[in-house]
Amino acid sequence: MAAAAVTSNGGAVAANGPAPGRLASVYSEVQTSRLLHTLPLPSVLRSNFSVVDGPASSAAGNPDEIAKLFPNLFGQPSASLVPSAEPAATRPLKVGVVLSGGQAPGGHNVICGIFDYLQERAKGSTLLGFKGGPAGIMKCKYVELTSDFVYPYRNQGGFDMICSGRDKIETPEQFKQAEDTANKLDLDGLVVIGGDDSNTNACLLGEYFRSRNLKTRVIGCPKTIDGDLKCKEVPTSFGFDTACKIYSEMIGNVMTDARSTGKYYHFVRLMGRAASHITLECALQTHPNAALIGEEVAAKKETLKNVTNYITDIICKRADLGYNYGVILIPEGLIDFIPEVQKLIAELNEILAHDVVDEAGAWKSKLQAESRELFEFLPKTIQEQLMLERDPHGNVQVAKIETEKMLISMVETELEKRKAEGRYSAHFRGQAHFFGYEGRCGLPTNFDSNYCYALGYGAGALLQSGKTGLISSVGNLAAPVEEWTVGGTALTSLMDVERRHGKFKPVIKKAMVELDAAPFKKYASLRDEWAIKNRYISPGPIQFSGPGSDDSNHTLMLELGAEL
Amino acid sequence: MAAAAVTSNGGAVAANGPAPGRLASVYSEVQTSRLLHTLPLPSVLRSNFSVVDGPASSAAGNPDEIAKLFPNLFGQPSASLVPSAEPAATRPLKVGVVLSGGQAPGGHNVICGIFDYLQERAKGSTLLGFKGGPAGIMKCKYVELTSDFVYPYRNQGGFDMICSGRDKIETPEQFKQAEDTANKLDLDGLVVIGGDDSNTNACLLGEYFRSRNLKTRVIGCPKTIDGDLKCKEVPTSFGFDTACKIYSEMIGNVMTDARSTGKYYHFVRLMGRAASHITLECALQTHPNAALIGEEVAAKKETLKNVTNYITDIICKRADLGYNYGVILIPEGLIDFIPEVQKLIAELNEILAHDVVDEAGAWKSKLQAESRELFEFLPKTIQEQLMLERDPHGNVQVAKIETEKMLISMVETELEKRKAEGRYSAHFRGQAHFFGYEGRCGLPTNFDSNYCYALGYGAGALLQSGKTGLISSVGNLAAPVEEWTVGGTALTSLMDVERRHGKFKPVIKKAMVELDAAPFKKYASLRDEWAIKNRYISPGPIQFSGPGSDDSNHTLMLELGAEL
Repeated sequence: MAAAAVTSNGGAVAANGPAPGRLASVYSEVQTSRLLHTLPLPSVLRSNFSVVDGPASSAAGNPDEIAKLFPNLFGQPSASLVPSAEPAATRPLKVGVVLSGGQAPGGHNVICGIFDYLQERAKGSTLLGFKGGPAGIMKCKYVELTSDFVYPYRNQGGFDMICSGRDKIETPEQFKQAEDTANKLDLDGLVVIGGDDSNTNACLLGEYFRSRNLKTRVIGCPKTIDGDLKCKEVPTSFGFDTACKIYSEMIGNVMTDARSTGKYYHFVRLMGRAASHITLECALQTHPNAALIGEEVAAKKETLKNVTNYITDIICKRADLGYNYGVILIPEGLIDFIPEVQKLIAELNEILAHDVVDEAGAWKSKLQAESRELFEFLPKTIQEQLMLERDPHGNVQVAKIETEKMLISMVETELEKRKAEGRYSAHFRGQAHFFGYEGRCGLPTNFDSNYCYALGYGAGALLQSGKTGLISSVGNLAAPVEEWTVGGTALTSLMDVERRHGKFKPVIKKAMVELDAAPFKKYASLRDEWAIKNRYISPGPIQFSGPGSDDSNHTLMLELGAEL
Repeated sequence: MAAAAVTSNGGAVAANGPAPGRLASVYSEVQTSRLLHTLPLPSVLRSNFSVVDGPASSAAGNPDEIAKLFPNLFGQPSASLVPSAEPAATRPLKVGVVLSGGQAPGGHNVICGIFDYLQERAKGSTLLGFKGGPAGIMKCKYVELTSDFVYPYRNQGGFDMICSGRDKIETPEQFKQAEDTANKLDLDGLVVIGGDDSNTNACLLGEYFRSRNLKTRVIGCPKTIDGDLKCKEVPTSFGFDTACKIYSEMIGNVMTDARSTGKYYHFVRLMGRAASHITLECALQTHPNAALIGEEVAAKKETLKNVTNYITDIICKRADLGYNYGVILIPEGLIDFIPEVQKLIAELNEILAHDVVDEAGAWKSKLQAESRELFEFLPKTIQEQLMLERDPHGNVQVAKIETEKMLISMVETELEKRKAEGRYSAHFRGQAHFFGYEGRCGLPTNFDSNYCYALGYGAGALLQSGKTGLISSVGNLAAPVEEWTVGGTALTSLMDVERRHGKFKPVIKKAMVELDAAPFKKYASLRDEWAIKNRYISPGPIQFSGPGSDDSNHTLMLELGAEL
């Protein structure tokens, strides 16, 4: 239980006076033990290696447009690290690193990986951390990452080593600012740790630096707990594993509670706005009575009424079996997937922008018939939220809607109806939960710790070999760490274009839940059983040693072809 | 990752066909490893022991009244188990066990402890589990707890082995029903696992059985995550340790998130309606910027405005230091501790029962001046909750008030005011959390697993020695398990009386946070530093092996005189 102050030599003594970053922090025993935990490296990174190119690459879509947008980088090959008899020629590098967007467990280990690469393989190098995200690059706000500074963050959660931010380098002026920083700091390389947008941005920056004949090369790293940045070469984004395990621990506990109490339906909303990977993974880990997958709801063009009926049907069937409890998982972005809701919101935004909203409700006549019907179908509190909570542009804030409470309320209404019709006679009690912030900053699992460390170490090697516009890629993840592959994938090969304001914009398409891929198919094949029978699994708290501590998640393993 | 079905021999093979209880369940790797985990016993329970009596006991207050209420049991000595050269004479017993009230991690291990005692020390015994709490006793609804039935619940969370309930055995008819069950099943003993009320009830039942010359003896066990059932002989209630560690893991994660993002104040409401032990323990584990302790709020006769100002002052001081983020812990029962709120609610109940509540608000003139002022001070959503959410008796449901959201709203208003006065210029963003159900049914920590197993094993020994009206008491908890003491404490010695409806009722007084005891004093001595400086600790997920896995909680250790 003894909490300990942290020092760079791993000792646990009281820190004297102010120290940078976490050096003055007090650590729990588990934090301390994680600090002392040695990180394994894939065997290719443990001895001499060289970087070899693969074949020329194309794009995920519209290669001609991508080629126009990235004249210097388009078509470049991906790279692999392979064992080599001789040590690679190296020279000291000056490298910057930046964290972009929301936190994901493991970010600190990416930085530790870059740092250790530079220390071990490119002596005399310097690593600079840009503070507060891409704004730190534009404003040239950075901190030199020394051994003392970096040490206390090894295997620790959060992004607080250098913090993150959501600014983007977009305008010509901003690209110029980045150029000025790169020149001023004499940067050989920059590692951008972020999601799909940030990696697109990293590639644009790499292209721009190349076009300006700067020596600064740019490498991306795949980060997001949402799990929606992935492809063949980048099997998963870091943070997804830890976040899903934290949520699944809590879901498992709530399931045991539901089964013990026998009288609550827990509606659990989970993070993941654009894609439902987190909900699907948590379902595979815990076997809930229902899990709504946004991508399926969209594909089947479900209405809110359909969704309500789906849940209500399960509740009624379970009531017939004597079970008046259950657990339902809901992705944060659910209502974004329901076409009729999108239509209603678009109409509301229009009305709120141009019309007077009268108390008596005459304004509602401006809604189209089906939108009006939907609006009337919504619980009153949700109607109010839709009308009152607006963003600075006056738009309805879908993000503020507590979907789990909305569904509870709609299910209640439907059950009342069925009760009146004699089709249901039990008692329903809904409990709403939102599991979000608790999962973004947990101590990274062994998988995320190791994966991130390899991503960072590999990014250092890619920069040393002169690569730019690649995303650090660690593969063969179903095998033990020693057998993992390391390399880089051309960011342009992940891109397609979207037309915005009449111009083509490059985008890395978010990886959505694929309805014909193994994870969803496994869920779909089991959900009817899980709905009615109680097949709950309680994964328990993340363990750092002992049984299960080195496993990754179901989604990744199923995608890699494992039988679970 | 391989999930496994559970069998009583510890193997992980697919269960064939339906099986009782969890036998058909699928277990996670961590659940399976916990199932295989061997439970240590205090050394006194590992070889021969005898039960010796201490001196005669009295009551916690009003001994004369307690003596009248418990003519057969009052004054009986507490008992200790001591090593003995000879094995105690034993005979097979028929024992019933019941879980009463809300879930707490470890309940299953109490039952495993009783079961193993009977198996190992009183061969030929039978253990019956009453289903669904005390109602199971009254209705004679039970299940025979066989080795196969009990095995899958070892070291597992929840109460689902036999489930729990909140019914009470109160009326003469209900006592008679319990008597009928005891006679019908020929019970030698009954173990009641519950909180303060359930243990009071256990003692009343023991007294009744004795008065009716029944052979059935009754032993209580101290259960509640709230930590408010404890005294010198019963140093802690089980479940508190696990629940606080689960909440502290999440709080630690949210703290790392706050520090990484730099822009949110997280207001975390924690379970614990009557006492604030959970909030205090979580504060000691994680070092938040503020933790409101209900007992202190009551002792200082704080108003809601005081509390709001206390938090707002911290926010302003931190803003001056450049920190626009933080974490505030709030006990679920906070507003029950604020005298003016109690007064307002009493007046509202009166008005709602007898008067017409008009839209225009003329009804408010019926509130006393200060209650009216307080009502107007409350955020609109809270006003609405107070007026709309009523229990079946028409009373305002304080439990439904989301205190964390109320405080965020009041802090926002106060900050706006200070902004207008030029005393605050930063931006405040509150995030509300309620950590409750996630903690009640987690896998019990090593401490709770071991403590409960000893409580149960000891309860078996007490029944064998003919004891009744005792609460199973395991002590010396700061030492290793081998050195723990085992015995029973006269339940009447924990009791006082309360006058209800003109009659004296026996009660075990809830143990509140003592403002002059070590845990609160430690918090009070550090909170000013925690408020301003960032001393966050992230305890991380509960570990079952490795560093920290065998520690208990700060509250218990400080109460036992340990220096932390």
